[in-house]
Amino acid sequence: MSYQAPVDDIVFALKSAAGLDSALANGLYEGLDAETIRAVIEEAGNFGAEVLAPLNWSGDRQGCKLKDGVVEVPAGFAAAYRQFANGGWSALPCPEAFGGQGLPEVVSMPVCEIWNAANLAFGLCPLLTQGAIDAILAGGSETLKATYLPNMVAGKWTGTMNLTEPHAGSDLSIIKAKAERRSDGTYAISGTKIFITYGEHEMADNIIHLVLARLPDAPAGTRGISLFLVPKFLVNPDGSLGARNDVICAGIEHKLGIMASPTCVMQFGDKGGATGDLVGEENKGLATMFVMMNQARLAVGVQGVAVSERATQRAVAFAKDRRQGRASNVKDGSSPIIAHPDVKRMLLTMKAMTQASRMICFATAGAIDVAHRAADPASRAAGAHRAALLTPVAKGFSTDAGMEVASLGIQVHGGMGFVEETGAAQHLRDARILPIYEGTNGIQAIDLVTRKLPLEGGAVVAALIKEFADTAAKAKASNRPEFGRMGERLGEAVEALQDATQWILGNLAKNPDDVLAGATPYARLFGLTSGASYLAKGALGEQDAGSSHIAVARFFAENILVQARGLATSVISGAGTIASISAEALSA
Amino acid sequence: MSYQAPVDDIVFALKSAAGLDSALANGLYEGLDAETIRAVIEEAGNFGAEVLAPLNWSGDRQGCKLKDGVVEVPAGFAAAYRQFANGGWSALPCPEAFGGQGLPEVVSMPVCEIWNAANLAFGLCPLLTQGAIDAILAGGSETLKATYLPNMVAGKWTGTMNLTEPHAGSDLSIIKAKAERRSDGTYAISGTKIFITYGEHEMADNIIHLVLARLPDAPAGTRGISLFLVPKFLVNPDGSLGARNDVICAGIEHKLGIMASPTCVMQFGDKGGATGDLVGEENKGLATMFVMMNQARLAVGVQGVAVSERATQRAVAFAKDRRQGRASNVKDGSSPIIAHPDVKRMLLTMKAMTQASRMICFATAGAIDVAHRAADPASRAAGAHRAALLTPVAKGFSTDAGMEVASLGIQVHGGMGFVEETGAAQHLRDARILPIYEGTNGIQAIDLVTRKLPLEGGAVVAALIKEFADTAAKAKASNRPEFGRMGERLGEAVEALQDATQWILGNLAKNPDDVLAGATPYARLFGLTSGASYLAKGALGEQDAGSSHIAVARFFAENILVQARGLATSVISGAGTIASISAEALSA
Repeated sequence: MSYQAPVDDIVFALKSAAGLDSALANGLYEGLDAETIRAVIEEAGNFGAEVLAPLNWSGDRQGCKLKDGVVEVPAGFAAAYRQFANGGWSALPCPEAFGGQGLPEVVSMPVCEIWNAANLAFGLCPLLTQGAIDAILAGGSETLKATYLPNMVAGKWTGTMNLTEPHAGSDLSIIKAKAERRSDGTYAISGTKIFITYGEHEMADNIIHLVLARLPDAPAGTRGISLFLVPKFLVNPDGSLGARNDVICAGIEHKLGIMASPTCVMQFGDKGGATGDLVGEENKGLATMFVMMNQARLAVGVQGVAVSERATQRAVAFAKDRRQGRASNVKDGSSPIIAHPDVKRMLLTMKAMTQASRMICFATAGAIDVAHRAADPASRAAGAHRAALLTPVAKGFSTDAGMEVASLGIQVHGGMGFVEETGAAQHLRDARILPIYEGTNGIQAIDLVTRKLPLEGGAVVAALIKEFADTAAKAKASNRPEFGRMGERLGEAVEALQDATQWILGNLAKNPDDVLAGATPYARLFGLTSGASYLAKGALGEQDAGSSHIAVARFFAENILVQARGLATSVISGAGTIASISAEALSA
Repeated sequence: MSYQAPVDDIVFALKSAAGLDSALANGLYEGLDAETIRAVIEEAGNFGAEVLAPLNWSGDRQGCKLKDGVVEVPAGFAAAYRQFANGGWSALPCPEAFGGQGLPEVVSMPVCEIWNAANLAFGLCPLLTQGAIDAILAGGSETLKATYLPNMVAGKWTGTMNLTEPHAGSDLSIIKAKAERRSDGTYAISGTKIFITYGEHEMADNIIHLVLARLPDAPAGTRGISLFLVPKFLVNPDGSLGARNDVICAGIEHKLGIMASPTCVMQFGDKGGATGDLVGEENKGLATMFVMMNQARLAVGVQGVAVSERATQRAVAFAKDRRQGRASNVKDGSSPIIAHPDVKRMLLTMKAMTQASRMICFATAGAIDVAHRAADPASRAAGAHRAALLTPVAKGFSTDAGMEVASLGIQVHGGMGFVEETGAAQHLRDARILPIYEGTNGIQAIDLVTRKLPLEGGAVVAALIKEFADTAAKAKASNRPEFGRMGERLGEAVEALQDATQWILGNLAKNPDDVLAGATPYARLFGLTSGASYLAKGALGEQDAGSSHIAVARFFAENILVQARGLATSVISGAGTIASISAEALSA
């Protein structure tokens, strides 16, 4: 089934959740206007639909192969990547100083959605490259930037992030990869890294690995981790490529999904040490890595939106075509299944979850833009705080939604959904990694309750909840019949979120284990309320009572958001059970 | 990872939810006692663990192959099936008159769980054979029974169910397969059937296909469907096998999961017509098929329990072994992840959902036994009604739970969960078919609200809810501190279920589309409340305050059942949105 970029929905989400219109009016995006932004998104949509989407299914079927250290990607991927780079797409969000176009997050995140909806396995390559670029920008010396960024921005070289080791996944404090100082100022890197996305391939001339490793005299734990840049091919002073570095791909994983993206075991230093350059300061690598990870977390949230969008398009098309049974208002013959109320519920759930998570992600993107671009420091700080608060919600909620929507997509197809050729199953297989990588969703939830809620003494979260409450009040006050109980339900959810937030802030120091035990339902509550609030804000701006945006916002509030109070109850008075149960009882 | 049958949990569920002790005391299971039942379950557990479980992973990897019409199943499957049949396992629930052991549902469903937990793809073969046996028992002539049942009961021949056609899945009214009367009393069957599980293989000497088809003069729709028995090899009057019948396997599906079970396209009558015998009366095939489907629906629910159990065992074992981070009560080194509150929540959710769905399924099994075995007709009728009411709940809730639990199982493993070799991903792939086949879960929910709630003018559902209310009252009155808020939460859920039930019964005739739109959240509410109620009943019987059964029941009530009121709200005041949205708006 073909993919069509949902340009209208994307622009609607930018206006409703990322405050695009007022940001443009306030001059946040100098040199840009709404028409240009839409035009870029449309052009990306064409590229995604015409070049990337047709490789999605074939890429899944062919997968990657490793032969003598060389990774072969599926047919068509290398050519598509060249077209992608030549089209300037990899340069889109990068600074103009290094050849980029300097476009803001409110453009790059919609475009990121499109690449990943068209072809999630392909989309990972620019996503990781962008992460590596961000890390070099955040911590690299001017020499490193000048040496590596222009080619990475141009898409001639790709990038990777090398964090995980076999014994160290979520827990980076125990990584073992070694870095030894050399007399020439470089470092000799050795060790094994796993789950390295696009760790090896021949789609680009060079691969720039960002690697976490430990110096011999480093303190134990997270305060002894340094970040290094390790290129596949060394770069000569004149910028040409030199010798192969001492890093190889020792294996690729056989995975559930994202088959077309090679997930590599990378072996550094088998021949004495891979040559690496320090990025930032010694022993402070984790801070730089986190700059980049936050950005990548939002991008992974957007991958969730992407897989939801693609699965929804496929399910809607099938439901319009497939005829079974007879709808109540029809006399003869069979009806397309889209006419059946239970199928409608599934499709509406898919649409509503997709749009809610898109809005949360774009709200985060808008906040990042404020953090980077606002004129006054107070606004920049507020933007940074808002982005920090929303990032774990964007990542966690949108990727959980991706799984739910992809699974519903299979269900809409019935038995056909279980047959791989239909294509619906691939979305579920692809989506399943999203709640895991770039920090599991459990870790996102813990980040939200332990680090983000306490920001500015709770003022950051209070300000956001206040906005949600205002939206609820407006929706209620509008008295528009087409809103149904949207305002009422949103008001109830905001109260539930308020109660749970207060409980968490009050118990974080006293009962940390109880707070941790409630982190996941709290994060879900936060995501549902945020999504519903942005949807309602969008609905408030619609004049036409028959707008499908209103219908989706109302459906979300009346049928999905109703989980809010139950989630708050679980946080406030359910989590206590969990800490009291011993691991022994659990494994009995 | 090895599988161990959870014999204690199974017996606990039989006592708590299926009323095993009182049924034994009342003489429902003549000739059986609790020790014998446990012994059979234990022996099945050994067979499952030693013979079937070791073939689960290899079977998934190898899958099935079709060559020249012959299906090759994975290595070891044929030998395991022979052992299975020789061990008398296929005969377990069948009537003694045909060589069976006549054991009740409260034995055969636990044993069914074990086969499917050990190896879901293998378990399908006896599951479908049992369905075919039930259909022949329900509608077959004495000759048919005598000719086919002994070898099927003995496991020498297997059985299939042939319903679906390419254009007719959930909607059987439009099937096109043809049956023409022959002068010798047999019928010539022709047509294409798809999704036929174990439609072709060489594990057994013969395959007995039960096929829905239409006579030339049949009325349109469901009232014109007849059921036929079509053997792969014709059976001679002396019982020996004769010629190959005119039925072939034209293809096998490439699926998301249950790779080791061949899902066949069956072609009947390419050479003039497959020879079939009528089962039951002409044009009344659907009624017979439904007798068998109800039984099969419960068995599929049990498959949900099975996949949940297997995924939970795997996740718990991993979480005890994998060390990341440090738990709050530990000073040095890293902790097994089972010690982290958020991981505990995932594992508890898995355990609680598994046990809740097991209890719902076994409650259904107990009701079927009452329907078949009680001395007085009123008890039998009450059992039949209770079974009819619970069957769609057992199928729908348990298979949705299977997906949720299998997905959480991957999440517990982190990145390793996405790697196929770990084994966790297979459970998700296998589980995904369960909410679809044997009637999609949407159809189960619709069956529940439109056909089962109105039974006896609502008295059947009222009696069950009354039982749940009694359990809630007892849990509250017990004032046991280890119960936490279990009684309170169950009471709230029962009220929500009551409200939603009343709304549905009141709107079924007036607003059928609104009822249909609320069917899925209603079914979920029903499942959650039933599961919580049976878990609470089990907890009430535990004397030891530290019982893990109490902890699981409390966790379920305080953290999962809290969704109840939100679901009722969605049913009562959310579903109305859905009918008002046009298919056009949905697909915009």
